[in-house]
Amino acid sequence: MKKIEECTVGIAGLGLMGGAFAMALGRLGVPSGRLFAYDTDARTLALAKDKGLIGECFGEARLMLPLCDLVFLCLNPSSLLRFLGAHQGDFKSGALVTDIAGIKGSIVRAAEQFRSDVDFIPGHPMAGSEKGGFDNAGRCDFRGKNYILTPLKRNRKENLAFLEDLLRRMGFGRITTTTAEDHDGKIAFTSQLCHVIAAALVNCEDDAAITRFGGGSFEDLTRIAMLNAPMWTELFIENREKLLERIRRFEGSLDAIGNLIASGDAAALERTLLAVREKRSAMNG
Amino acid sequence: MKKIEECTVGIAGLGLMGGAFAMALGRLGVPSGRLFAYDTDARTLALAKDKGLIGECFGEARLMLPLCDLVFLCLNPSSLLRFLGAHQGDFKSGALVTDIAGIKGSIVRAAEQFRSDVDFIPGHPMAGSEKGGFDNAGRCDFRGKNYILTPLKRNRKENLAFLEDLLRRMGFGRITTTTAEDHDGKIAFTSQLCHVIAAALVNCEDDAAITRFGGGSFEDLTRIAMLNAPMWTELFIENREKLLERIRRFEGSLDAIGNLIASGDAAALERTLLAVREKRSAMNG
Repeated sequence: MKKIEECTVGIAGLGLMGGAFAMALGRLGVPSGRLFAYDTDARTLALAKDKGLIGECFGEARLMLPLCDLVFLCLNPSSLLRFLGAHQGDFKSGALVTDIAGIKGSIVRAAEQFRSDVDFIPGHPMAGSEKGGFDNAGRCDFRGKNYILTPLKRNRKENLAFLEDLLRRMGFGRITTTTAEDHDGKIAFTSQLCHVIAAALVNCEDDAAITRFGGGSFEDLTRIAMLNAPMWTELFIENREKLLERIRRFEGSLDAIGNLIASGDAAALERTLLAVREKRSAMNG
Repeated sequence: MKKIEECTVGIAGLGLMGGAFAMALGRLGVPSGRLFAYDTDARTLALAKDKGLIGECFGEARLMLPLCDLVFLCLNPSSLLRFLGAHQGDFKSGALVTDIAGIKGSIVRAAEQFRSDVDFIPGHPMAGSEKGGFDNAGRCDFRGKNYILTPLKRNRKENLAFLEDLLRRMGFGRITTTTAEDHDGKIAFTSQLCHVIAAALVNCEDDAAITRFGGGSFEDLTRIAMLNAPMWTELFIENREKLLERIRRFEGSLDAIGNLIASGDAAALERTLLAVREKRSAMNG
């Protein structure tokens, strides 16, 4: 792989994350003349070009992909799968390709079936913003954020090292390499279950003035209820088996604390809350 | 009531909130020579005096209370009820007294039985920090925070106005006046249910390395799992009827979303998530 400053980089999907990657690549020295973007939204493309962020914009991916040494696929899972099907022939031979989908099982299966002369390394940046779209790309801060890679057996070691180095230089903190199965199970907990809880919490109160009684907890727990509905619908349904298992496990945990409260056994409840505090504290490492 | 700068003010309980009130009163011009504190912890009292925050410290409340025109009772609910029982005779006649307990039913009942020549206005500042104790009082920022007052019918109007004005000058934002019943029902939702959810979420995962898969949601939802176990035990058990009702309602809401996910009905799920987004958005007003 060439140095990143010498690569021609394509971004497919110029939304919140695609825009944030474009900005990060610009900061790392990729000249805008070699930074291309494909999107279906002409206004976004025009805006990105006017800003000088993107050198050339494409309304048709088949015109961009043959030019790119490195491609960031910044699409929702279902769009990504359709895109891979439609454009398999368009990628440049030897290109390094990565995606950002929040579910990895179906993506890894598609990547394994993909052209073997294109090195597709599936990934998931644990960054974002409850305000979506290209206009909010500047809100998406990569610094110190987690990144999960779910590489294929056939990925080239030097490409994996190149991508990890690039992500670190973009500001990402811990980069974890694991299987799609492990990713999807853990993300069902840390991300999807949390979004379901936030939505359920908002949905069980009808008083819009309830925030007069907020002290930060309700606000913290429901910030992510301002979610991108189409994307989260896809993620929840695609990963539903693992997510439903996590919902069940959480309900069991909630029932256990509810039963302690109902019993009025203050000593046992206090022991549980102390243990929770210690457990959460140990999770920061 | 005199001007606040001319009042002798006593703080009973120099923990996180007591310390934060002492700092706020100092900023408003109460000279430290007229700012007194009672606490059972001699180290905290010595520290507060060394810092010049408190003019005189008392290990015995009966020696402080007769001197004070205004008293902030910054104790956990059960300690507060014991304190009121033990020290009813010690307050200065005509004093204005307020408390900060997160549950108001039992406190309002006690206040109604209290000496009628002492004006006790029950209150609840919606501020705090997951790091408790006097050492962290500086972390407790009042600016823009909500405050709930649950006055008694017999409270003097001018004292209520004095307290509201004082709280605003300390930085508090919306001050809501309501009944103890309404407070306890709403706090069961915005505060107690959220803490129960955070604890239940931490308690259904045993992998301390799970935070490598965190993207902010899990962190947001479990920050408050770092809770003050004795205080929250009291609040949960004292308000258990209303809290258990809120847990049940939340579980129903969670089940409804879980069922939509299980059904695989993407259109219905997306409609629900869009409605949640709008509902949460409307709650900001």
